[in-house]
Amino acid sequence: MSLVLDPAAQDLLFRQARTANTFTDEPVTEEQVQAIYDLVKYGPTAFNQSPLRVVLVRSAEARERLVKHMSEGNQPKTATAPLVAILAADNEFHEELPELFPHFPQAKDAFFAERPVRERSAVLNAALQAAYFIVGIRAAGLAAGPMTGLDFAGVQKEFLDDDHTPLMVVNIGKPGENAWFPRSPRLAFDEVVTTV
Amino acid sequence: MSLVLDPAAQDLLFRQARTANTFTDEPVTEEQVQAIYDLVKYGPTAFNQSPLRVVLVRSAEARERLVKHMSEGNQPKTATAPLVAILAADNEFHEELPELFPHFPQAKDAFFAERPVRERSAVLNAALQAAYFIVGIRAAGLAAGPMTGLDFAGVQKEFLDDDHTPLMVVNIGKPGENAWFPRSPRLAFDEVVTTV
Repeated sequence: MSLVLDPAAQDLLFRQARTANTFTDEPVTEEQVQAIYDLVKYGPTAFNQSPLRVVLVRSAEARERLVKHMSEGNQPKTATAPLVAILAADNEFHEELPELFPHFPQAKDAFFAERPVRERSAVLNAALQAAYFIVGIRAAGLAAGPMTGLDFAGVQKEFLDDDHTPLMVVNIGKPGENAWFPRSPRLAFDEVVTTV
Repeated sequence: MSLVLDPAAQDLLFRQARTANTFTDEPVTEEQVQAIYDLVKYGPTAFNQSPLRVVLVRSAEARERLVKHMSEGNQPKTATAPLVAILAADNEFHEELPELFPHFPQAKDAFFAERPVRERSAVLNAALQAAYFIVGIRAAGLAAGPMTGLDFAGVQKEFLDDDHTPLMVVNIGKPGENAWFPRSPRLAFDEVVTTV
């Protein structure tokens, strides 16, 4: 084996982990979400900019407001998952840069003075962190159900502001009955990787 | 503990793993790259679209062409890392969708007929896969050095084409001497996560 990661961990995070479409009623606790964050916050981002922001939708009232912005096919699972999280990019992450990147506090002004530059960087790096977050959900023994079938402008207006770009909504919980389709095929190594 | 992932795996992937700036001479083999891909290819993407494409820069001639497009601070590590990979998003991923998402082969035309829609989806989902790839590099016991300080248009013209958007360049290898700065601080849970 060329990997040093324990095979059980490989299964938990990638090989047996699946995107769940149904969930049990078992709650996802605040402690679990904190443990997930305390693990995945260490995943790398450019200049340690850490632009991911998370809105946990816990109240019935907020859940109802979110469900109406989801595509029809995503509404039932968003309505029934034990916990739903909105993942967003903070386009004003540069305000925290002097604290987050003390080796080079000038980065805030030298690289991120312009909003369009910040927006591109925030979305790319928050997407990296969204992937770490999905891996972290699995590390907690939970299934993630990331979704991009939704009205992004509606979710932004309802839950965020102009400085925060929503990237996806993630259902979180223990998988329920018939939680997934058979696994779809993946591209072969040679279809993805070329060597020069 | 709220996580079920083995603590040694937590350390390997997140807690002790660091972005390396120097590397030993030990080569990164084709078998290692294949093992990394065969693990992280299972990470979820929207419609299983799997838009990440990887260019492994193995020849001295290609390495030289790449280094000149890197920012000055990134040139020495790009020149000396055992292996360097260009990670890119395939904006024409929809051509593979009927194969990759057999539950709903119409997705290709129903959702991805327009190029700007495809580009946004390709960049977001390839960024997720880039993060899985970084985690996979660490799962192989190697250090990753992801970089976005580079001339993206130059790298695209030199190594890719109009249908492929470069996202980052990643140095891969065993960490060398003085491989990293002290770890920078992370945002506290309450600065990142809000509940509604």
